[in-house]
Amino acid sequence: MISTLIEKIKEKKAPVVVGLDPMFSYIPKHITDAAFEQFEETLGTAGEAIWQFNKEIIDQIYDLVPAVKPQIAMYEQYGLPGMMVFDKTVKYCKQKGLVVIGDIKRGDIGSTSEAYANGHIGTVTIGRTELRGFYEDIVTVNPYLGSDGVLPFVDACKIHDKGIFVLVKTSNPSSGEFQDRLVDGKPLYELVAEKVNEWGADCMDGEYSEVGAVVGATYPEMGAVLRKKMPKAYILVPGYGAQGGTAESLRPYFNEDGLGAIVNSSRGIICAYQQDRYKEFGEQNFALASRQAVLDMIDDINSVL
Amino acid sequence: MISTLIEKIKEKKAPVVVGLDPMFSYIPKHITDAAFEQFEETLGTAGEAIWQFNKEIIDQIYDLVPAVKPQIAMYEQYGLPGMMVFDKTVKYCKQKGLVVIGDIKRGDIGSTSEAYANGHIGTVTIGRTELRGFYEDIVTVNPYLGSDGVLPFVDACKIHDKGIFVLVKTSNPSSGEFQDRLVDGKPLYELVAEKVNEWGADCMDGEYSEVGAVVGATYPEMGAVLRKKMPKAYILVPGYGAQGGTAESLRPYFNEDGLGAIVNSSRGIICAYQQDRYKEFGEQNFALASRQAVLDMIDDINSVL
Repeated sequence: MISTLIEKIKEKKAPVVVGLDPMFSYIPKHITDAAFEQFEETLGTAGEAIWQFNKEIIDQIYDLVPAVKPQIAMYEQYGLPGMMVFDKTVKYCKQKGLVVIGDIKRGDIGSTSEAYANGHIGTVTIGRTELRGFYEDIVTVNPYLGSDGVLPFVDACKIHDKGIFVLVKTSNPSSGEFQDRLVDGKPLYELVAEKVNEWGADCMDGEYSEVGAVVGATYPEMGAVLRKKMPKAYILVPGYGAQGGTAESLRPYFNEDGLGAIVNSSRGIICAYQQDRYKEFGEQNFALASRQAVLDMIDDINSVL
Repeated sequence: MISTLIEKIKEKKAPVVVGLDPMFSYIPKHITDAAFEQFEETLGTAGEAIWQFNKEIIDQIYDLVPAVKPQIAMYEQYGLPGMMVFDKTVKYCKQKGLVVIGDIKRGDIGSTSEAYANGHIGTVTIGRTELRGFYEDIVTVNPYLGSDGVLPFVDACKIHDKGIFVLVKTSNPSSGEFQDRLVDGKPLYELVAEKVNEWGADCMDGEYSEVGAVVGATYPEMGAVLRKKMPKAYILVPGYGAQGGTAESLRPYFNEDGLGAIVNSSRGIICAYQQDRYKEFGEQNFALASRQAVLDMIDDINSVL
């Protein structure tokens, strides 16, 4: 799958992924009003409004970017109607030719991780039929439980031509509380990086491994170290834009050939219409504002490569 | 919520939680046959079969135990039909007066953890209406992202009288890969334990905090250390039975008064009918086998307290 992602990155000249992380409060009033009319003050309204919001944005950006990254929490919070829209969004993005990175950050003991892996990037078997639970191409994985929590995802990558990004150094302010602590003189995130190499070693898909890493844009010095430490791991970089990462800070995450990293922006794209910079589009044309924000982001990132 | 859990533990004299972690392969043939008839080889069959399986077990055990712990992965793997049964199972258990511990192991950056917390133990607001996404009383939380990934759950505990169990030392064989590594001479799990105390300090509910900890039954020496280290944290202990933990090994997880820990068994209870010990019940009476297995587990654990 990572080779498919890389092809699409090259084809679109855009090492960029759009985070589809809709909050109800992000959605323009004309959409929520229509949803309230249909479903009143229920979770159905959240589901319907998010779906209409996502769909317009996807329609405006699918030709510009290789991938999208729906954050499942933003759907899961709205219960079953939310999960239905997660599923619908993933399927719609795949129809549009996008690689879908499910930002699920799952990780558990072996047998349970196997269930998550089967459900999100693998298959489950009912009778003699193999079925998919959800339809992502790649998912994010939490490594705190160690190898037996991660390897079921690696196995699913091998069997089903899928990928994972393992959390190594996250973008949030308190990520250092545990991740930066020194173990034998090395920060914990370097130990996790070494494991990423190990887990990915026999799971290559061209130049890069199906096992990639998450390294936040907000920690560029660590990004530089981790880029060298994991030469075969693609790096998913959250934290650009709303969380504070700048294009200049992103250079260290890429290899010399301009590959090796893909940068995510969520609020910066899907809420572009709320920014001064894009307010000329107006709330009705929120998705055109998102399109312009994607074009600007691609230019911004390519300017440092 | 932790005081409610403790009351129920005392009332039923059972520091025991039943893990509702159904795999399709665990379910007796008469149930899967009926589901196949209705839904053929679809995810709907998994959903229907798991629901019938769960319901019979819940009906047989609800009067014996204070709580159940559905592992969401086992439902999520079957996509939307699986999630519907998760929701239905949680609601049914609450109707039966059980405390429901959602084993979700979520954890993300602050705004995303907030969405998970709102969705599982809090509320979301649509218009002027506060609604619940899912209906658990307590959830498990992964600490790898540090305080800002955990505190939104703590806030939800305070506002909504709910609880969390933070993963400190998990029961799986490779949990030591990161969790046991020494930081300033102390294993990482002890650092997490110190944070559990900090997060839980202003979130007391009687003698114990709403912020508890997960410590696997498979590491009793660490259990003894962690019991002393986190005097106000209730400990959820997975790993008894199928994963290898014995009653004798559980003693260190409890305080002198017999409180402070609740022990989970999943496969050992829900698949009891497949064990030699309970085979006399027969496949049709699988739920009676589960009932007997719960009675035996309660006796076993109380024998060391």
